[in-house]
Amino acid sequence: MARRSDHTREELWWLAIDASRKIVEKEGLRGLRARQIARDIGYTIGTLYNLFEDLDDLIMHMNGETLDQLMEAVSKVELTQNPTMDLERLVHCYLSFTHEYPKLWNAIFEHKLPEDRPVPEWFSEKVSRLLAIIESTLAPILSDQSETEIHQHARVLWMSLFGMTILEGSGRLQDGETAFTLAKTLIKTYVDGLKSEQNMSVSNGL
Amino acid sequence: MARRSDHTREELWWLAIDASRKIVEKEGLRGLRARQIARDIGYTIGTLYNLFEDLDDLIMHMNGETLDQLMEAVSKVELTQNPTMDLERLVHCYLSFTHEYPKLWNAIFEHKLPEDRPVPEWFSEKVSRLLAIIESTLAPILSDQSETEIHQHARVLWMSLFGMTILEGSGRLQDGETAFTLAKTLIKTYVDGLKSEQNMSVSNGL
Repeated sequence: MARRSDHTREELWWLAIDASRKIVEKEGLRGLRARQIARDIGYTIGTLYNLFEDLDDLIMHMNGETLDQLMEAVSKVELTQNPTMDLERLVHCYLSFTHEYPKLWNAIFEHKLPEDRPVPEWFSEKVSRLLAIIESTLAPILSDQSETEIHQHARVLWMSLFGMTILEGSGRLQDGETAFTLAKTLIKTYVDGLKSEQNMSVSNGL
Repeated sequence: MARRSDHTREELWWLAIDASRKIVEKEGLRGLRARQIARDIGYTIGTLYNLFEDLDDLIMHMNGETLDQLMEAVSKVELTQNPTMDLERLVHCYLSFTHEYPKLWNAIFEHKLPEDRPVPEWFSEKVSRLLAIIESTLAPILSDQSETEIHQHARVLWMSLFGMTILEGSGRLQDGETAFTLAKTLIKTYVDGLKSEQNMSVSNGL
């Protein structure tokens, strides 16, 4: 077993997160045990709980790392100011990511904090930064709408896409369907709807 | 322990399904064990496996019963031929149902058959009958579209709504958001999009 002084606190933190990711990617969140993480990194459980409040805290940070990786991937997507095309590109990137790390992605939604424990601010901010990208693609067709409305449309799209990925992941799609083809139909129709609402409010002089 | 002859095969079948529903509604699908079901109905596990191929088969039938109950509820919704209004009414009914039986509803999506075992025809038909109701509400604005296209739009809507219910169920909505308010935004925008596409194809003489 390694001695604590072999690694800095930061190195240890990353060792634990990386080991957790490997376990979850193989066995899913249900397979994650503090004992196993400690064994994999060659430290005691005591050292682990010196780094993280508890297993929930460790999982939140592991999930935060997944969100950061997705953020890094979608940041590289080239955007065009054409909402339909941009959303398709973002969704393509998002689906590639969730297909590559399905169990890590599921862990974000499988994990529930105890009811009396709110989601930490830093975690919500990571989610908001991802949503802000969807919001920015919608902005050109929602110039008349408030930030709150744009935010709600981004969240509706995001949750809808989430439904498709979950159903694809659990093998519920029909022959010939993929989350991507369904998402393209959603995006096209939704963006057409937003444009038509925008046109109506313009022609009504609103 | 009751003797097998105390109940007909059909009565036993329903006893087992009802007992399973009670367990799942209390403890979730993960709490369901053949031993417990047998104990609750006062018969042996042998009797249970005389009625169902295995636990997967029993769960499929229990989930089928949940779909039947939802079908019964949505069949009572009064429809108006106004797609937005009709979809809102259906979603309201669907959400009331999933709020009343959250764990039974989740069981439908948590349960995975082994990979080599296809979803039984009778189960898929129950899902199709539910989707057919969404399709029928969309029909007035999709007169130019093929059955396949209408079917795809119904599935996109259904999966999107599913995403919202799942995220609501796992406490991921923001303050002030409910699955119903999000669903209303989705329905309004999506129906506007379908109408605008329909208008475009009419004005193009297609």
